[in-house]
Amino acid sequence: MPKSVFYLSDGTGITVETLGNTLLTQFEQVEFNKQHFPYLNSKDKVQEIVQQVNAICETDESLPLVFSTIVEPESRVLVKSSNALVFDLFDIFIGPIESKLGIKSSRHIGHSHGMGNSDIYKARIDSVHYTLDHDDGAKINNFSSSDIILLGVSRCGKTPTCLYLALNYGTRAANYPLTPEDLQMGGLPQCLQPHREKIFGLSINPKRLQQIRQERRPNSRYAELAQCQTETRNAEALFQQENVPYLNTSTMSVEEIATHILQKSKLKRRF
Amino acid sequence: MPKSVFYLSDGTGITVETLGNTLLTQFEQVEFNKQHFPYLNSKDKVQEIVQQVNAICETDESLPLVFSTIVEPESRVLVKSSNALVFDLFDIFIGPIESKLGIKSSRHIGHSHGMGNSDIYKARIDSVHYTLDHDDGAKINNFSSSDIILLGVSRCGKTPTCLYLALNYGTRAANYPLTPEDLQMGGLPQCLQPHREKIFGLSINPKRLQQIRQERRPNSRYAELAQCQTETRNAEALFQQENVPYLNTSTMSVEEIATHILQKSKLKRRF
Repeated sequence: MPKSVFYLSDGTGITVETLGNTLLTQFEQVEFNKQHFPYLNSKDKVQEIVQQVNAICETDESLPLVFSTIVEPESRVLVKSSNALVFDLFDIFIGPIESKLGIKSSRHIGHSHGMGNSDIYKARIDSVHYTLDHDDGAKINNFSSSDIILLGVSRCGKTPTCLYLALNYGTRAANYPLTPEDLQMGGLPQCLQPHREKIFGLSINPKRLQQIRQERRPNSRYAELAQCQTETRNAEALFQQENVPYLNTSTMSVEEIATHILQKSKLKRRF
Repeated sequence: MPKSVFYLSDGTGITVETLGNTLLTQFEQVEFNKQHFPYLNSKDKVQEIVQQVNAICETDESLPLVFSTIVEPESRVLVKSSNALVFDLFDIFIGPIESKLGIKSSRHIGHSHGMGNSDIYKARIDSVHYTLDHDDGAKINNFSSSDIILLGVSRCGKTPTCLYLALNYGTRAANYPLTPEDLQMGGLPQCLQPHREKIFGLSINPKRLQQIRQERRPNSRYAELAQCQTETRNAEALFQQENVPYLNTSTMSVEEIATHILQKSKLKRRF
């Protein structure tokens, strides 16, 4: 029987879900049944969820887990009155920070993933549109306003990484696909030469690339293993010859690729 | 003097940063100087950071805050030996879960934002590419494989929301821009009629839309207030007439829009 997990929040629930999911990956052998309850902005709504939680306490073999980032004090008392194993993130963290650092929290709701500062918000949306406009080498004459330019062969992970960087860090991330023609010419493509210091390379294992391309264009020359081997070998040779820092993305998630790039390129987060 | 905050992780550091940032939004009046240290995968690296933290304890007016999702036991002992106010997320959560639920954690590193299950990973990347291929009404004959179709006037927030849904929940999110011509015709555009149950509307206040469009195309008809008023009024009338659920995005972050859509449309998360 899967263990029940409740994520409660008076905002989007993104923080509580991120934290809870991370913790639960440490219990690989257990199956979890996760339920998300964002926007619990009234005591009535909270009361209803607490009743659901208590009903599950009666029927499940083991106690359900409740993770809560609810801020409002009376709702928090309600949640903690349930029979489950409750983690109230504000009790755990905010109390000690207030007492040890002598500062008071504001107890406002929904701050963390709200719109916040409108300049930051604008920068973020601008970055997403910049990234879309500069995806796949679409506008090669306008790299001067980019923060970073990802370089690599087709389907090595450039686009999802650029979008992730734009959405999460406000990075103006362009990308340029190294075509077989670029690779034959050797050296950095001309349009990239003035922006050498912003370039970051992505590479990938040929077999993994073949799988990905095979799904995109089955049985094409583009998806042949020999083609994938030649392109990735030439791309890596180019990165080395031109001193472009690069990363092999074969076993990495988009989050991992983005974090490595942020760390290695010393890119500034815009927020 | 800004308070020093350290985010330590042996993985990407995304969880620890998300949690820490949420908590710190509760202390609006305080300025924080946040430092991120992902991939602390050796005791030597951890020791180096602990020395930095201790040096700051000597010079700063108040104790630095350290949030850590490091899993490796000896590194955690090192972190907790520092003079700062340390929150070790594994101590706080994993211990109680193990003892109260009688289950053992795996103590593996870097699981939460790693590549994980390759089917999930593939679904995610596919969703991003699906969303890009179906952005802005690009492929209007292929909505049958979409999970949701966002509908709204130009620049009301459709594209960033679709990309956020694809990256974070693996949603195949298409979008269709309501043009002034569509709105004059009245009714749902023909290509959307077979997919009525998947449509979700986005609206926006005309003044906010004007600001956004003014930056995109200054002093164009497109950016005139009267034009924005007509388009948004007609779009909302269409949503009401056709029973399309919709949301006003004017004061919402992308996370909030996405969470509301997930909640209201009962969309399934793919992971």
